[in-house]
Amino acid sequence: MAQQKKMVEAITSRDVDFAKWYTDIVKKAELADYSGVKGCMVIRPHGYAIWENIQKDLDRRFKKTGHENVYMPMFIPESLLQKEKDHVEGFAPECAWVTVGGSEKLAERLAVRPTSETLFCEHFAKVVNSYRDLPKLYNQWCSVVRWEKTTRPFLRTSEFLWQEGHTLHETREEAVEETKRMLQVYIDFYKETLAIPVVTGKKTEKERFAGAEETYTIEPMMHNGVALQGGTSHFFGDGFARSFGITFTGRDNTLQYPFQTSWGVSTRMIGALIMVHSDDDGLVLPPKIAPIQVAVIPVAQKKEGVLEKANELKNRLSDKDFRVKLDDSDKAPGWKFSQYEMLGVPIRVEIGPKDIANNQCVLVRRDTREKTVISLDELETAVEKLLLNIHDSMYEAALKNLREKTFEARTHEEFLDIAANKPGFIKAMWCGDSACEDQLKDETGGVKSRCIPFVEEHLSDTCVCCGKPAKHMVYWGKQY
Amino acid sequence: MAQQKKMVEAITSRDVDFAKWYTDIVKKAELADYSGVKGCMVIRPHGYAIWENIQKDLDRRFKKTGHENVYMPMFIPESLLQKEKDHVEGFAPECAWVTVGGSEKLAERLAVRPTSETLFCEHFAKVVNSYRDLPKLYNQWCSVVRWEKTTRPFLRTSEFLWQEGHTLHETREEAVEETKRMLQVYIDFYKETLAIPVVTGKKTEKERFAGAEETYTIEPMMHNGVALQGGTSHFFGDGFARSFGITFTGRDNTLQYPFQTSWGVSTRMIGALIMVHSDDDGLVLPPKIAPIQVAVIPVAQKKEGVLEKANELKNRLSDKDFRVKLDDSDKAPGWKFSQYEMLGVPIRVEIGPKDIANNQCVLVRRDTREKTVISLDELETAVEKLLLNIHDSMYEAALKNLREKTFEARTHEEFLDIAANKPGFIKAMWCGDSACEDQLKDETGGVKSRCIPFVEEHLSDTCVCCGKPAKHMVYWGKQY
Repeated sequence: MAQQKKMVEAITSRDVDFAKWYTDIVKKAELADYSGVKGCMVIRPHGYAIWENIQKDLDRRFKKTGHENVYMPMFIPESLLQKEKDHVEGFAPECAWVTVGGSEKLAERLAVRPTSETLFCEHFAKVVNSYRDLPKLYNQWCSVVRWEKTTRPFLRTSEFLWQEGHTLHETREEAVEETKRMLQVYIDFYKETLAIPVVTGKKTEKERFAGAEETYTIEPMMHNGVALQGGTSHFFGDGFARSFGITFTGRDNTLQYPFQTSWGVSTRMIGALIMVHSDDDGLVLPPKIAPIQVAVIPVAQKKEGVLEKANELKNRLSDKDFRVKLDDSDKAPGWKFSQYEMLGVPIRVEIGPKDIANNQCVLVRRDTREKTVISLDELETAVEKLLLNIHDSMYEAALKNLREKTFEARTHEEFLDIAANKPGFIKAMWCGDSACEDQLKDETGGVKSRCIPFVEEHLSDTCVCCGKPAKHMVYWGKQY
Repeated sequence: MAQQKKMVEAITSRDVDFAKWYTDIVKKAELADYSGVKGCMVIRPHGYAIWENIQKDLDRRFKKTGHENVYMPMFIPESLLQKEKDHVEGFAPECAWVTVGGSEKLAERLAVRPTSETLFCEHFAKVVNSYRDLPKLYNQWCSVVRWEKTTRPFLRTSEFLWQEGHTLHETREEAVEETKRMLQVYIDFYKETLAIPVVTGKKTEKERFAGAEETYTIEPMMHNGVALQGGTSHFFGDGFARSFGITFTGRDNTLQYPFQTSWGVSTRMIGALIMVHSDDDGLVLPPKIAPIQVAVIPVAQKKEGVLEKANELKNRLSDKDFRVKLDDSDKAPGWKFSQYEMLGVPIRVEIGPKDIANNQCVLVRRDTREKTVISLDELETAVEKLLLNIHDSMYEAALKNLREKTFEARTHEEFLDIAANKPGFIKAMWCGDSACEDQLKDETGGVKSRCIPFVEEHLSDTCVCCGKPAKHMVYWGKQY
């Protein structure tokens, strides 16, 4: 086995060099490749198939909560982007600008959308007149561009794929409810589909989305203790509506401003899948979004009846709607074992002459490598059960990592000591002043506030930075 | 009924002003809206839901024929676009150019992709080494930009949504076969899903895609006799491979150039759906891609038991996976009838107190307005049968229009006479010289060669334009 494995080129060990391990997986699991355009990636079939499964699952959740998909233009005229002042300050510095169309210089520059609030607002202003037109519950799947200086596949790229929900409501309460509802949709999706636990809460003022009154976030922890902003849901109040002149005639016949939300997740989630679940043998994918859930590998496939039986198993599993691949290529079984481990396939089915003689096969799960011999009579039920089991184990392992790497700091010294020596999240009290956020970030080389959780613990009376009375308990941590 | 109808604002009659009728439907059926960006449209929920159904159906066909989805960057560096000289000549004049990223002027301009051959080629050159890596059967769903001077929603917009297939093969024969296979996938999709018959064949040299050795096309005819290029499939030979240095080691151990294809259809198909099927009361949608297939309209809904029964019918149909909407709003039934006709919903179910007493309901089909009273016991089977029937009738009606508006010209005079007086396609012989295509276009105000069909009829011995010996029978016509 050890010898056969060498045929699939090994990757850098996760504990030796996390960053190199990450890019090795991106490359060896054939998820993405670099392109000739700075900071833009090619998403390869295996990577895109994961994205398609993510899309399908999320889209179902969005439609179930009453949302409709639309498509807005990819360009934003500079004057439109400028209509909301915080928003333009936040995004203009990282826009790609179209200045020439055909052979003519444009009278006005067009930003390639970094996000589409302004376009949705322009449209809302045209189609909303009465309270009867509300709510508008829209979502869009598209690519967006943010001109980044340093990039990494999936985690930070100049172009990325995402969904952006944009909704408009009659009342403040309804909009706040929507903001939280969609945050919950993301939390559920991360748990039920990606097998990733998250820390959740609201962002501090400093970390809010440009133009938002409140930003809610989900923060999964990567295996090395670093956070990834996994998804956000923003409440805009009626600020954008006022800037863009969106009004409606209310039930009391007065002209009113509607309340607005937006929320989004992106291909960055594929980066999270790698960094939360995967190991030194490659990708480990949660069964719900694995493009191949079961790889059937014949052993001694030239022996009579082996390929036929392997095919039969494949067909039985396909008929039950599992995503199955039979690899009957002439490569050695050991090479195939390693290859499908690299691709993150949750279950490998091994079937050889001895198995056939005993009416059995071997199931090997990707996450723990545990082998089980099962009767062929129970193939479908065993696979179904094992996939559910793998999902749960993966979630539990990630939760264990999150718990083990979450620390509490009650004093400034304690905070700096943990930040220097224990990668992970730090729970600590905060006075509410962004100057303390700046100071802690500087002192620790990048530890920032992640969020203020919905249920705060009382760890001490004073801010861990300045010693003034504490207002909130905050999760702190470095981020990708 | 006539009086009730007035409540939904009437649209321009198709026979009075086809162009205005078209834009009225786009607006009133809530398919798309104009945006503040020149030539770019907002695709609204009803329009986008049609696109999602189109995508789902086509994507299934692509995967069934072995294709995988990928995602390439949206930007093409100018030097990359220039690598194939015909290609850059064809597309550079209509590109949108990004010249500034963040706050810096870029060293090299980036084109927003008008099509992605060059990006696929760059990637192929990196990942293809041996005949074992072939074929590559890729597809991409994305938006592309072509800077248009005059635009019309769905038909010609500066940005549009499409899919572009890009494949790479070991031999010329295999690539030609792929080009034709995907053309056939489009033909089948138009017939089986959009209920639209097409004329098909290859383009003349003049009308070929920039850089292609051969372009195959499907050409549906709109109700007014004008053609729409409905989809194309290109064979590139090894031209791009040579320009981009894509090579592979063949079975005989020599270094070879692979052969390439690309093929695409776009949101323009939504324009075809309007112009082929719809009428003076609005959109008429083929059942396979209608976002709502059945609208249940309660009559006298305040009477006891009506809404309950309407809900029951809705649920029965939903359970059978029909896409159903119950409209229980307080608007009058007549308004609802007109509204769902405008939206193109294939079947309306009317249910009122008298119907309930008789254990029946009324089915009204959108295409012919025919009413049938059916027993509630046979609701599901009657709806299923009627939807199939509507599809077939719509196809037959479109085929009848195509046949009635296809003419034959044997002489120059006959050609000019038909072109001037009978909107539609003209079948006529051609010498093979593009000068004759230019002349006919000038003389007729825009009649161009549509395609050379796979099976050519022999209408006469000489070119309908110059009188020299004929090489091909060509379909001619004006186009959108």
